[in-house]
Order: sequence, then structure tokens, then C-alpha cells
Amino acid sequence: MTLRERVTGAAAAASRSLGLPAEVRNAALDAMAQALGAGTGEILAANDRDLAAARESGLPAPILGRLAFDEKKMAASLAGIAALRGMPDPVGRVLEARLLDRGLTLTRVSCPIGLVAMIFESRPDALVQMAALAARSGNAVVLKGGSEAKHTNRILASILARAGTEAGLPADWLVSLESRDEVAELLAMHEHVDLVIPRGSKEFVARIMETSRIPVLGHSDGVCHVYLHGDADPAMAADIAVDSKIQYPAACNAAEVLLVDAAFVPRGLAPVLGALLDSGVALELCPRSMEAFAGAQGARDSGMQAMHASAASGGSAPVAPAALPVSPAVRPFEGDDWSVEYLDMRIAVRIVDGLEAAISHVNRYGSGHTDAIVCTSVEAARRFMDAVDSSSVFHNASTRFADGYRYGLGAEVGIATGKLHARGPMGVAGLLTYKWKLEGSGQIVADYASGRSSFLHQDIPMEEGR
Amino acid sequence: MTLRERVTGAAAAASRSLGLPAEVRNAALDAMAQALGAGTGEILAANDRDLAAARESGLPAPILGRLAFDEKKMAASLAGIAALRGMPDPVGRVLEARLLDRGLTLTRVSCPIGLVAMIFESRPDALVQMAALAARSGNAVVLKGGSEAKHTNRILASILARAGTEAGLPADWLVSLESRDEVAELLAMHEHVDLVIPRGSKEFVARIMETSRIPVLGHSDGVCHVYLHGDADPAMAADIAVDSKIQYPAACNAAEVLLVDAAFVPRGLAPVLGALLDSGVALELCPRSMEAFAGAQGARDSGMQAMHASAASGGSAPVAPAALPVSPAVRPFEGDDWSVEYLDMRIAVRIVDGLEAAISHVNRYGSGHTDAIVCTSVEAARRFMDAVDSSSVFHNASTRFADGYRYGLGAEVGIATGKLHARGPMGVAGLLTYKWKLEGSGQIVADYASGRSSFLHQDIPMEEGR
Repeated sequence: MTLRERVTGAAAAASRSLGLPAEVRNAALDAMAQALGAGTGEILAANDRDLAAARESGLPAPILGRLAFDEKKMAASLAGIAALRGMPDPVGRVLEARLLDRGLTLTRVSCPIGLVAMIFESRPDALVQMAALAARSGNAVVLKGGSEAKHTNRILASILARAGTEAGLPADWLVSLESRDEVAELLAMHEHVDLVIPRGSKEFVARIMETSRIPVLGHSDGVCHVYLHGDADPAMAADIAVDSKIQYPAACNAAEVLLVDAAFVPRGLAPVLGALLDSGVALELCPRSMEAFAGAQGARDSGMQAMHASAASGGSAPVAPAALPVSPAVRPFEGDDWSVEYLDMRIAVRIVDGLEAAISHVNRYGSGHTDAIVCTSVEAARRFMDAVDSSSVFHNASTRFADGYRYGLGAEVGIATGKLHARGPMGVAGLLTYKWKLEGSGQIVADYASGRSSFLHQDIPMEEGR
Repeated sequence: MTLRERVTGAAAAASRSLGLPAEVRNAALDAMAQALGAGTGEILAANDRDLAAARESGLPAPILGRLAFDEKKMAASLAGIAALRGMPDPVGRVLEARLLDRGLTLTRVSCPIGLVAMIFESRPDALVQMAALAARSGNAVVLKGGSEAKHTNRILASILARAGTEAGLPADWLVSLESRDEVAELLAMHEHVDLVIPRGSKEFVARIMETSRIPVLGHSDGVCHVYLHGDADPAMAADIAVDSKIQYPAACNAAEVLLVDAAFVPRGLAPVLGALLDSGVALELCPRSMEAFAGAQGARDSGMQAMHASAASGGSAPVAPAALPVSPAVRPFEGDDWSVEYLDMRIAVRIVDGLEAAISHVNRYGSGHTDAIVCTSVEAARRFMDAVDSSSVFHNASTRFADGYRYGLGAEVGIATGKLHARGPMGVAGLLTYKWKLEGSGQIVADYASGRSSFLHQDIPMEEGR
């Protein structure tokens, strides 16, 4: 079958999925979990082949780690399916209801989007999660995983597709692609594919966003900021700056730029930067912060020496030499484009003059992902969170909290930095849209236009919050 | 100023609008209403110039009617602003709230999208409505009205922009374009414009949807169906078919295709088609319906004659000659593409075999706008409304109800037939997105990763339904 035939089949499945009752989608999730369990041997064997090939071609250890699908990842995948199975059905929820007139009731009801394409990198467990999300939300899905995982992905897709279909999902509800060439062709099929969710390198995601006419939900950049307001608690500022940077530096929600209010400098610049250095973070300082830090270093050189010594004995992270700023861990920030995404143990530091300057910096150079303020003032926090134009805005918390699991959304579909449809970490709700249902008893508009009838427009209260 | 400078200014205004409190937006609406009232003389004089030029260039009467901005339209515009002013503030609403842990609260809060471009045709009152919607929702806006209305639009935009700014909205919150050439340049500025809402001819909207990389909300086609199920009440079927077609045939929510279940044919085909003919509707019949109607005509020719006679005396619509099917008002449907959008007093009629065939027809040929089933069976209605993939699905009501005002949404921003962000008639909610706000007390992710802390993930009930 050609790609076009497969995608057309999936689009037809999407159409047939629209009216599926919850019981069928529940049964599909059960069947998928059972079939995965029964197929464990086959799946692990296929994964061994992928791992062997990956080792042979010399892929680095972190990629091998993501590629591995062992009993532990199987258990986690099954737990993920069970969690989706246990959540209340997200399809068919009444989001809004209004009595337009006697016997004329309008409801706005959640429903699947249709055919969703999900493109992701090496982790085969992502394929299981995406398939389960599609079954839960009533969408048909085209999946494209990393080519390193092709044997694992092939057996996983085959087991999951068959299990779902046997439980009542339409044939072709899950289509799996194997080659990168097919992605370009898929992205051109905007008449069949309703939504693309890419997860992968920023270049890959950016290219999809630029080339496809299909709506894309995702993010390419994660340029996240931590802003230390003038009244920030220095200890909290250090903790949040360090965690935002080092808890997982390669993640999109890791901080890349530390904005330090000029008013905070005398109160806490040195200890915050010292804590970052002690955690193994390399600093790229703006001229003002370079000067201020050097001055602070000179003034309390002995104190910093002591702090470094204590960290060196207690912490596991490498410690920067004490003779700052000539240390290789402290460098001037080069250029004037602050849209840096290091994704490693570096952070840029810039001194700003006040809250509004910080907000302007974030809105100009940020990527709309996650930005945090550390401050005591409730007013400053409110202003920052209202005025910063990002999908997640935090007060006194690490940027690393920006994540579907931590937000309590259950499975995470992805993180979107666009402004439409879904924004920030997306749970299964990102895979749903809504339709309007009007149930009448023969009403015609001519009666309302002529004044024979008139609208009541009486909102019907919802029981649930969303 | 160049277009780029103006749009960049509006984008900056969008950014500055983000933190504006409700009081400022309320004051802006008040000031806009007051300034319009004070400027009535100027506005009507400008409109006279546009009307004179339009008459001179021989524009047809319906366009002159839409172009006219008289005291009545001024009053309606002011009433529209007052209604928006009176609604609860749509910005800053808490849509979802969750206690992640003690002292760590997550909320999902409505906020403006940013810079919205609205492109519309001849009606100057649309400019007032769009400006008021932007002020209400906290968005900056680029407006482009029809060139026939340029004098009226120019004075309206100038009055509204100034009034808003004087009340506290950022300078450049409203930018008005005058030439069509500028639209193409605007549509290329995807780095500044967050959303385009076009209203106009289907060709115009389709072109924007195809060429712009900016997300577009709107619809080009309105191919709406009325499906008469086997158990439909014939009188109700006739009323709904007639109203869906003739109540305003040029509207996007007017029915273009009547699907008649084979089981309904002996029960009601003849009276329904007779009622359409009596209302002045021309029929384009599929071969089966042509045959069935001719047969029914032959059988009860005298009855139909009588019906026509009575309609001719009572109704104002032209009546088709009784000698069917050779009447010019009854023709065979040509070709096999049922995606017809007449936008006039014609309707296509097709006999289908059962509910599923009707659903397939609608999903294949429809435009995802509005489709109605007429039936008694609750099961059939449920199935149709679940399985038809349209933004509005109706049971026993005219397709003409698909409209923001009739839905009780207040001002209508437009109707969207895409599936993302907003679907169907859009009120001010279509101009809003949301952001996630996390308010902590120094929490870092390392504590949750290490198990020192754990998430509560306790949903906080909302007071309101949405």
C-alpha cells in the first residue's frame, strides 16, 4: 500500500471513530494492554535487534538508554495505559449548555479532532503512549518514531493496531510510518491530517512548523527565564536558579537566562552565582553582572573560598575554581541576542533595571515556554505573570515544573508554545475539539425573525468545572 | 509610516495590553461609545461620500444597503458596545485550578491572544463591532474593511482608536488598513500577527487560508445539509427544509442539499418538495428523487394543483408551474459533486438509503459547517449528531440557527469550520487563549524527583461552568 492509501485509510478510520461509544474505546485500551503483555517476548527481542544495531553504529549512551525497551519500560507503559483507562471519558463532555428557547437546547460537547500525526524520536515507549492517547481520545493516528527503533516500533505498532481493531476500533485507526521520506509526503496531506504533533530536536520541529500547512502543536525553542526581583529571598533565588538550570539541563523547560534585578545585586548576586558555579554551571555574564560579580568576589573572596570548599566536599557537581572571573566557568556573554538555548550546564546572566525591563526582556527574547519570577511582593508577581506572554508563568517555583505529569494532566501529549487551541503542557485535552449540538422540536428561524418567538438564552449550569 | 511599522506598533501594543486591568478595558469601551456618539455628524457625512461614490459606480442595492451607516446602524453599534461592556470580563477567568502540593497552586487562566487581524467586507458597522471585541478581549487589532466604505471606515477607526488610547489602551492598539495590497503584506507578517479572521466571499477567505502561515479562523464554504430521516414528521420536515433554505439563502448556514431517506419518500417527499417549490425554491433532483417526485406528482396531480393555487394566493414568493417535472423550477442534478454552494434559491435533493448513508454523504461532501437531521427517533438523532463531523449538528431545528447571536454568544466574531481553537459560531471566547500560572513558595523539582516531596494533584473545584 502507498503512503497515500494508508493515510486515506486512517482518515476514513478517523471519520468512523467519531461516533464510537466509551465502551469501545475502553475495551480497546484493555485489549492493547493485554496484547502488549502477551507480546513482551517478541517486543524485547525486537528491541534487542535495535539496540545491537545502535551499539554497532556507535550511538552514544544516552540514545541507547532512550532506545532500550525493557521490562521496566514495559511496566511503565502498561501503567500509563491503565492511568488513561482509569480517567473519566474525555469525549462527549458537555462544556457549555444553554436553553435557547423552550424545547431548543444548545450544548457544546467535546469530541475527537480526527486524524492526528505524531512524530517523535528514539523512545519506543512514546509510541505506546501516543497510541493509548489516540484510543482514549477517539482519534485515528499516524505515528512515526525514530528509525533507530524501527524493529521495536514495528512490532509495537502491529500489536497495538490489531488489539485496538479487534476490540472495535475501525481498521487503520493506527498507521505507522517507518521512513523519514514519508514524513514530508504526510505533511503535504493537509486534506486528510487534522493536526501534527512533532517531538524532537528544535531544528526538526521548526522545519515542520515552517513547511506544513497542517496545524502544528509543539515547540521548537525553550528559552526559559528566571527573574530575580529586587525583593527576592536570596536563598530561595539560589535554589530556584540552580534547580531550573541543572535538574535536567537538556529539557526544554530548563532555564537558559537568569535576569537579575539591579536592586537584587547587592542583596544576593554573589551567593546566587556562587551556588550556580558550585553546582557545576558555567556562567555567561553581561558586562554589568561581570563587574558586579568581580567586585563582590573581591570584597568577600575568603567567604566564597569557604563556600566553594564546603560544596566541593559535600556536592557531587564539579566546582569552579575560586579565582573568578578568570575561571573558565565564568565568561562574558557575547553578542546581543539573548535568545540562547544552551540545553547544557551554561546559563546567561543579565542585570535588568526593574520589573518592566525584565518583562520586556522576556517578551522580546523568550520563546513563550516558561518563565519564573522570584519575589516577595504579590504585586510584582501578579504583574509579571499577567504581562509575560508565555504559556507558563511561575512565581517562586522552578521552571522545571512545566510538564504534563507535574501539572497533573496525566499523560503528556507535548508542550505547545503557540497561542491557539492548546498552550503549554498538553494532556489528552489537546487531542480534543468540540462541536455544537442543537436539539429542537421543529423550530425555524423565521419565527424568531418575525417576532412570533423570542430567545430565552438561559445558561444551564454545568456540574463540573471544565 | 510603512505598513510594517504600523503592524510592529500594533504588535507592541498587543504585548503592552496583556497586563491591562478590566477597568481600563471597560473605560475604553465607554470612551469608544461616547466618542462615536459625539462624532455621529462626521461619521454620517463620511458615509454619505462613500454612498455617493458607490451609487455613481453602479454598485447593486444590497451592497448599498450594507454600506449605509445611518442613525439606526449607529444605535445598533452602540447597543453592541453596551452589550459587550455589560458582559462579565472574559479575561483573567480561572478555567482550571489544581493544588499540586501544599503552597504550590496551578491555575489555567484566560488571556488575550495578542494581535488579531480582522478582514471584512463592506459593512462599516463590522468595524465598530471588531474594535469593541478587541477592546473587550484585550487584544490589539489590525482592521481592514471594504474599500467601498473607506471614508466611513477611516473616520470610525480614527475615532475609536483615539478614544481607546485616551482611556488607557496602548497607542496603536487599533491599526486600520485601507488598501487590498496591504493585506498580502500583512498576511506575510506571521512573526507579529497571531491570528487572522477573514469574513467575506468564499474565494477571498479560501485564498487567505491557503496563502497565510498565520493561523486563520473562519470558513470559506457553507455546504449545509438537511437530512429527512425515515421517521421524520412530514410537516416538520417541510418547515425545516423551507426555513433552512429560504430564510436567508445567501447566508453560509442556509441549506444547500436536502438528503431524503428512501424510507421517507412515500411518507413525505411530495409535500416537502411541494412546499419548497411553493416558497420559490428551484429543485435540482438526483435521478431517484426525480423519478419519485414525478410519480408522486402524477398520482396526486390535482392535490398539488390545489396546494399551488393556495400558496399563490397567500404567499409572496413566486410559485412554480404545476406541470412538474418539466417546470423550470425542477431540474436534474448534474454531475456527481454534491459539494454545491448555491447561496441562492436553489437546493439539491438526493435520496439516500438510511442513516449511515446520510452520515457518509455529509462527511464526504459537506463543509463542516452545520447539518441537521429531522427525525423522531432519539437514537437516530444521537447517532447523526455524534458521527457527523461538523461544527454544528442539529436535531429538528433549522440550519439557520447556527449563528453567534442565536447561540447566545453575544457579539459574533465569525464562524469557524476548522477543528482547532474555536469551532462553529465564535463569540469573544474565540479571541482568547489561556496561560498556566504556578504560584509556589520556593519549590524545586529536585525534591519531587528524589522523593523528598510528592505531588498532591488535588483539583480545586471551579465556581463557574466554564
